[in-house]
Amino acid sequence: MNLILLSPEDFLPGSARVRLAGRRLEHVRAVHRAAVGDELRVGLLGGRIGSGRVLVLGPDALEMEVRLDREPPAPLPVTLLLALPRPKVVRRVLRSATALGVKRVVLLNCFRVERSYWQSPFLSPAAVEGQLALGLEQACDTVSPVVELRRRFKPFVEDELPALAAGTLRLVAHPAAATPCPRGLAGPVTLAVGPEGGFIPYEVDLLRACGFEPVGLGERVLSVETAVPALLARLF
Amino acid sequence: MNLILLSPEDFLPGSARVRLAGRRLEHVRAVHRAAVGDELRVGLLGGRIGSGRVLVLGPDALEMEVRLDREPPAPLPVTLLLALPRPKVVRRVLRSATALGVKRVVLLNCFRVERSYWQSPFLSPAAVEGQLALGLEQACDTVSPVVELRRRFKPFVEDELPALAAGTLRLVAHPAAATPCPRGLAGPVTLAVGPEGGFIPYEVDLLRACGFEPVGLGERVLSVETAVPALLARLF
Repeated sequence: MNLILLSPEDFLPGSARVRLAGRRLEHVRAVHRAAVGDELRVGLLGGRIGSGRVLVLGPDALEMEVRLDREPPAPLPVTLLLALPRPKVVRRVLRSATALGVKRVVLLNCFRVERSYWQSPFLSPAAVEGQLALGLEQACDTVSPVVELRRRFKPFVEDELPALAAGTLRLVAHPAAATPCPRGLAGPVTLAVGPEGGFIPYEVDLLRACGFEPVGLGERVLSVETAVPALLARLF
Repeated sequence: MNLILLSPEDFLPGSARVRLAGRRLEHVRAVHRAAVGDELRVGLLGGRIGSGRVLVLGPDALEMEVRLDREPPAPLPVTLLLALPRPKVVRRVLRSATALGVKRVVLLNCFRVERSYWQSPFLSPAAVEGQLALGLEQACDTVSPVVELRRRFKPFVEDELPALAAGTLRLVAHPAAATPCPRGLAGPVTLAVGPEGGFIPYEVDLLRACGFEPVGLGERVLSVETAVPALLARLF
């Protein structure tokens, strides 16, 4: 928790003072080991970042005087289309994509996604929001990605994706691709990342028909949780 | 397991035939769902890669006729100096660094590494080897990194590091660094990655004195497990 994420309800009415309990209080006591007078990095969910001066720190509550004086870090200009990974992995990938600055993630079904993954409690809105908050707190950001679930590959790619990807460079990460993943782009990208085992040829063809070019990171086959940071760091 | 890792003991004496049981057998039955006659990707630990044709597949053993006809993927020309992460994270980072092609990892103590991390059973040679094997199997590689443990930062940096890093570009990943991490290098690099919270200024100064330049990936503070793939994908 490199930044303490605040929501409007944390503020005492009509003041710049917040009162926190629960997970954030515990963290400030146990990890930051803060004391009254310390300045901690804070940010308002969806808004600016700044600092909070500790006024009260007890077993039940932390109170801070908050000044929000800076914009959060710039987003990555990327929409991530991600074949739904297995439940444990989806949590880590959501955290890392959020930390890296992704602002839109579409979790997508495809042939090699096991049906049971869609039943995971980790996909509940509250569970997803929890992982996004961890990613924001890690990276000192305040702007959560929008995470959407699409359980039907073909209708999504044919009906929604053309508008969603309009005006962006469209890339599908594919271990077998001959074209290396480009580096250091400035413009917007829509990046599709397949499941373990990859998209099947039929799916790659549908993505190609929507303007996606297969690109690779070399001979090595990477797990989704390694591939996502690697691809994003290489692209931008 | 995109590649089945073989060791010399798996071979029936004087033949190109291997006999496997245990974890690899289970995986081939449950995940590959292979049948007699199928070709599976295999590699000899420390040696070449190729394919194995399934001759026998029963509840107790898998036998394959193996042909090793290709070199494993090229290594990344990097030595990774990694402040020892917490036990759960060290496993994932060893796997991902191995999958990305790192061939030498030094797990290093420093001020912000908790002393208890050094007692983790995940640092036993067998446990480390297990993670390296998973990384190799993921990436279709056969050459394990050498993993070394160094419990004293200053003697390591002053006495060992100058020789270890000789002739390489020396970089220390540091969230506050003004210089952006370089891209697309061809030559050898020694890359130091600090703990959560970063190296302390004294440690950065010791690394600087050894020729290391602090570089960053932007404003965002990344966790070690996200930073390592991001840095490696950007450097090479």
